[in-house]
Amino acid sequence: MKPINLKGKLTLFDSHWDPKVIADYNDNEIMVVKFQGEYPFHLHETTDDFFLVLEGEMVMDIEGQPSQPVKAGELFVVPKGVTHRPRAENECKVLLIEPKGEPNSGDPATAAPKPRI
Amino acid sequence: MKPINLKGKLTLFDSHWDPKVIADYNDNEIMVVKFQGEYPFHLHETTDDFFLVLEGEMVMDIEGQPSQPVKAGELFVVPKGVTHRPRAENECKVLLIEPKGEPNSGDPATAAPKPRI
Repeated sequence: MKPINLKGKLTLFDSHWDPKVIADYNDNEIMVVKFQGEYPFHLHETTDDFFLVLEGEMVMDIEGQPSQPVKAGELFVVPKGVTHRPRAENECKVLLIEPKGEPNSGDPATAAPKPRI
Repeated sequence: MKPINLKGKLTLFDSHWDPKVIADYNDNEIMVVKFQGEYPFHLHETTDDFFLVLEGEMVMDIEGQPSQPVKAGELFVVPKGVTHRPRAENECKVLLIEPKGEPNSGDPATAAPKPRI
């Protein structure tokens, strides 16, 4: 039970698309992650997906809709069941929230391990 | 389904201890709020309480423990059942997450209405 500094946590790793758990909120994991490049299109069948851009800029592609830039200080919630793809031309730092055990890729076969830092 | 600019939402009101809902994440409400002064000690029996300081600095008092400053870019999760009191000498802007219907004061009799903006 202490303050968690997001920038400090983000200095602990360099990898992309590799979320790290920094805290829990009820049955959810709060994570920091660095995006660069393009993630595959995917969906989460049973949960919304929470993105808060902390530094840089990402693009959220929603299937069948125009791409939307999401800048530092902006929040984007992808509703459950909606096919989406985050991407970032330059490195972008993001706060993520997903339920515990939810594969970040929507598929356990391709999910990142989400270690705690 | 579009980006939500936190600073933009925070320009829409001046009141303190008066959270405004800006988005939903599953069964939770994502809110922005301005703190200034001292909130009463309270607890949430069935939920953790999520605070992310966006601007300024607050202090989190946890019953029986030393006070902890929480600065911009820092996250603090108060576990369910823990008696706490946020306070801020100067205005502090915060992102809050609580389950839908949860009284921000822990008690429906004293809770703020949490309108959507």
